[in-house]
Amino acid sequence: MSKKRYSSSKIIEMLTEIFERFPGIGKKTANRFAYHLIQKDVKTMEKFIEIFELIKDNIKECSLCHNISETNPCHICSDKHRDGSIICVVETIKDINSIERSGKFRGRFHVLKGVISPIMGIHPKDLTIADLTARVKKNPEIKEIIIATSPTTEGEVTANYIKKVFSGSEIKLTRIAYGVPVGSELENIDEVTLFKAFEGRKEF
Amino acid sequence: MSKKRYSSSKIIEMLTEIFERFPGIGKKTANRFAYHLIQKDVKTMEKFIEIFELIKDNIKECSLCHNISETNPCHICSDKHRDGSIICVVETIKDINSIERSGKFRGRFHVLKGVISPIMGIHPKDLTIADLTARVKKNPEIKEIIIATSPTTEGEVTANYIKKVFSGSEIKLTRIAYGVPVGSELENIDEVTLFKAFEGRKEF
Repeated sequence: MSKKRYSSSKIIEMLTEIFERFPGIGKKTANRFAYHLIQKDVKTMEKFIEIFELIKDNIKECSLCHNISETNPCHICSDKHRDGSIICVVETIKDINSIERSGKFRGRFHVLKGVISPIMGIHPKDLTIADLTARVKKNPEIKEIIIATSPTTEGEVTANYIKKVFSGSEIKLTRIAYGVPVGSELENIDEVTLFKAFEGRKEF
Repeated sequence: MSKKRYSSSKIIEMLTEIFERFPGIGKKTANRFAYHLIQKDVKTMEKFIEIFELIKDNIKECSLCHNISETNPCHICSDKHRDGSIICVVETIKDINSIERSGKFRGRFHVLKGVISPIMGIHPKDLTIADLTARVKKNPEIKEIIIATSPTTEGEVTANYIKKVFSGSEIKLTRIAYGVPVGSELENIDEVTLFKAFEGRKEF
């Protein structure tokens, strides 16, 4: 246990710095969170400590696909019943859960841990793209890579970058379909999505 | 150290529940925060644990004014150079810092830990108003209570409630001035603030 002495304002500063790195959080909100936390009682602090110990002890990053799991390799990479010939490339671990819920995909994943965004200072080397090429090189069973990045500017740039990386290789590169979401009314769909939906039309 | 086994989805659920209780955070953002945290490495987790240990070991709530500090009573309540005859009533500990920065007030504080808000299920008994009356009863040196709640509906209700509690007592009740903030242009000031500014006008 730490025996250092810290003032409340120093601790608030430290907490604010942590929360500022949370997605979509500015300095002001981070500061509000810090004040929220520092007013909690000893029992709440112990609950927090317990949960972070849990993460530390239980959660591992998969060295193959960069998913998080209780084991390394993760439960998906070590599942012999999954199709090892197809890799679905996603931006975050959260995307894996969404895709798993759909129940359609039975291959394995590769988490990029972000998207290329020069404006945010995120370049290809900051993602796990090099790991992906190494993984493909090491596993001749891999035949197809499905790119499932988001249909945003950054997602498009990242998808095109990966396409370039694998151009000339034997790997079949595919991309999930972007179009009108099921259950939506056409009049509420933006024009870019409609453009994609027409572009990706299939025989009926 | 905990030896229990938890799945990543269970931990994400636990984290989401914690963040949902943060001010202004809904289920979706809380879930995004949970995913953000669970992907952090062991070193980051250790840093988090350290900071929560720090709060646990260093931060105490003042039993007199409910401020947080490294000591109980807090550094303001135990400062003999401060004027013990005036108590400034504020909603949160954050307000103390703002008032302290202004350098004008040299009395002591009382933190309500919120405002009366029936819609949010916050009633007078949930605040530290009973402690305030007990504090005043025990300390005959207290002559004035300055109410510095926010000029919101809840702040007004709370101010009026405290006024009622002390009506008939010898205590002088005052309220900080609400009006046009310094440095602002009149054309940008809302009408309620202008109303307050005219109502509170002083001889010039």
